[in-house]
Amino acid sequence: MTKLTRNLISSIVFFLISLLLVSCSATNATSRIRSRHRPCKRLVFYFHDILYNGHNARNATSAIVGAPAWGNTTILAGQNHHFGNVVVFDDPITLDHNLHSTPVGRAQGFYLYDNKEIFTSWLGFSFVFNSTQHKGSINFAGADPLMNKTRDISVIGGTGDFFMSRGVATLMTDAFEGEVYFRLRVDVKLYECWS
Amino acid sequence: MTKLTRNLISSIVFFLISLLLVSCSATNATSRIRSRHRPCKRLVFYFHDILYNGHNARNATSAIVGAPAWGNTTILAGQNHHFGNVVVFDDPITLDHNLHSTPVGRAQGFYLYDNKEIFTSWLGFSFVFNSTQHKGSINFAGADPLMNKTRDISVIGGTGDFFMSRGVATLMTDAFEGEVYFRLRVDVKLYECWS
Amino acid sequence: MTKLTRNLISSIVFFLISLLLVSCSATNATSRIRSRHRPCKRLVFYFHDILYNGHNARNATSAIVGAPAWGNTTILAGQNHHFGNVVVFDDPITLDHNLHSTPVGRAQGFYLYDNKEIFTSWLGFSFVFNSTQHKGSINFAGADPLMNKTRDISVIGGTGDFFMSRGVATLMTDAFEGEVYFRLRVDVKLYECWS
Repeated sequence: MTKLTRNLISSIVFFLISLLLVSCSATNATSRIRSRHRPCKRLVFYFHDILYNGHNARNATSAIVGAPAWGNTTILAGQNHHFGNVVVFDDPITLDHNLHSTPVGRAQGFYLYDNKEIFTSWLGFSFVFNSTQHKGSINFAGADPLMNKTRDISVIGGTGDFFMSRGVATLMTDAFEGEVYFRLRVDVKLYECWS
Repeated sequence: MTKLTRNLISSIVFFLISLLLVSCSATNATSRIRSRHRPCKRLVFYFHDILYNGHNARNATSAIVGAPAWGNTTILAGQNHHFGNVVVFDDPITLDHNLHSTPVGRAQGFYLYDNKEIFTSWLGFSFVFNSTQHKGSINFAGADPLMNKTRDISVIGGTGDFFMSRGVATLMTDAFEGEVYFRLRVDVKLYECWS
Repeated sequence: MTKLTRNLISSIVFFLISLLLVSCSATNATSRIRSRHRPCKRLVFYFHDILYNGHNARNATSAIVGAPAWGNTTILAGQNHHFGNVVVFDDPITLDHNLHSTPVGRAQGFYLYDNKEIFTSWLGFSFVFNSTQHKGSINFAGADPLMNKTRDISVIGGTGDFFMSRGVATLMTDAFEGEVYFRLRVDVKLYECWS
């Protein structure tokens, strides 16, 4: 084999590798990085829920809107661990623990208590952002066994900066005061990002 | 290098490129075209909501089913921008603006008002089709800041013709009459299609 | 062309094919098998719903928590096919038909009746598992035209063993007794699995 032939073959090899690696990624289009172990985006927020209890109309950010036959919409059902209470909320989102920090967005949607033996809820809500930092929304759904230190719900979609996002959000009750105030830490881990 | 060698190498190059491009797409199986800029399917529909108000039982397609302590289920809560009202609906879907056009499906699910300062809602619903044109369902969830001209919610899944769909739906209030009737234009853009 | 050249070219061809096939799959990272015709995971469960009716507080696993103006939360609305009734549930999941089999998890969330002409509902709920067999949750949403023998809803996400799952669940009413008890067979077919 001549030196020329060898060089030619080397070039072809290099060209082919380059070309085909590019083709492969192109097939997958929008740069999606997928790994269970490394989220493609991670964000930590806090949101603050102040439940209407008949006396705090001004400050309340949420209200009971559904109750079972044995309950009412002013006070969480005393028996059965609030089973059947449905709460609508519009809660401020902050970057730190402080309720009075400037909100970076709103957590909007509902939760309901769905267990007679322990405190367990089911959540359907969105984080809605409209700041210079984030524009768009992240949509969540899932079961929240709230007596556990941490629990995971699903990120089921997103819009704007979070277009087509999917992932998991780890919730942690960061603080609570009786049945009026609670603060949730939300660790949003996106595993599908569309850029 | 002989002419034969050169020809052989050319053939190999061509064969390799073909083979490997095919392999790459095959890895991705079901023909999914993914691009943020070009939906794989796009559909525009209108749906029409006539809210029960105590006097229109026959025509109403939706009803208030949840209300905060300061409200009731006959009339949307006058204060706080309907905060806490939950509405269940079964609305006709049409291909044009006309409420009386032959429906092509039903929009079924719920919305709730979740903001005390402005009109904002949260939606969980499905488009249900059972015609020669479309069979199956598209499932939606997300926040709807309804005073904005357009707003995006998530397509979180689908069945039948819309099997495993994901995407974004752009909502636009096309018309409304007081608190009894509204018509939403829904521009469904799917970015994940399974064929 | 010498024999050496021919051998060299053969080796290169083989090396390239191997290398690039590996590259292609690596781009797709986590072993996702995608085919409309073959789910990557399939699970069949039953869940059992006993609706509170004013007399069965002990056994009830669900309760009416929302009703239209013409209804109440003790009895499903007699007219309009329960339109507007919202039910919160925490139902045992079993592997067979028997209500008294050891539950393998809980089905938690809500359903609402959303059609005046026929029985149709909309569901948002989770399967929550915490056994040696399964840990984690599967989240569901979708329309359930419950008079059909089978109907499909969406698997919109999952956590734990079902991390990032998507798919379709086929529901079948396996049994019902008046308006107090029903048993649903749920055939969960996941088409996106992250291992």
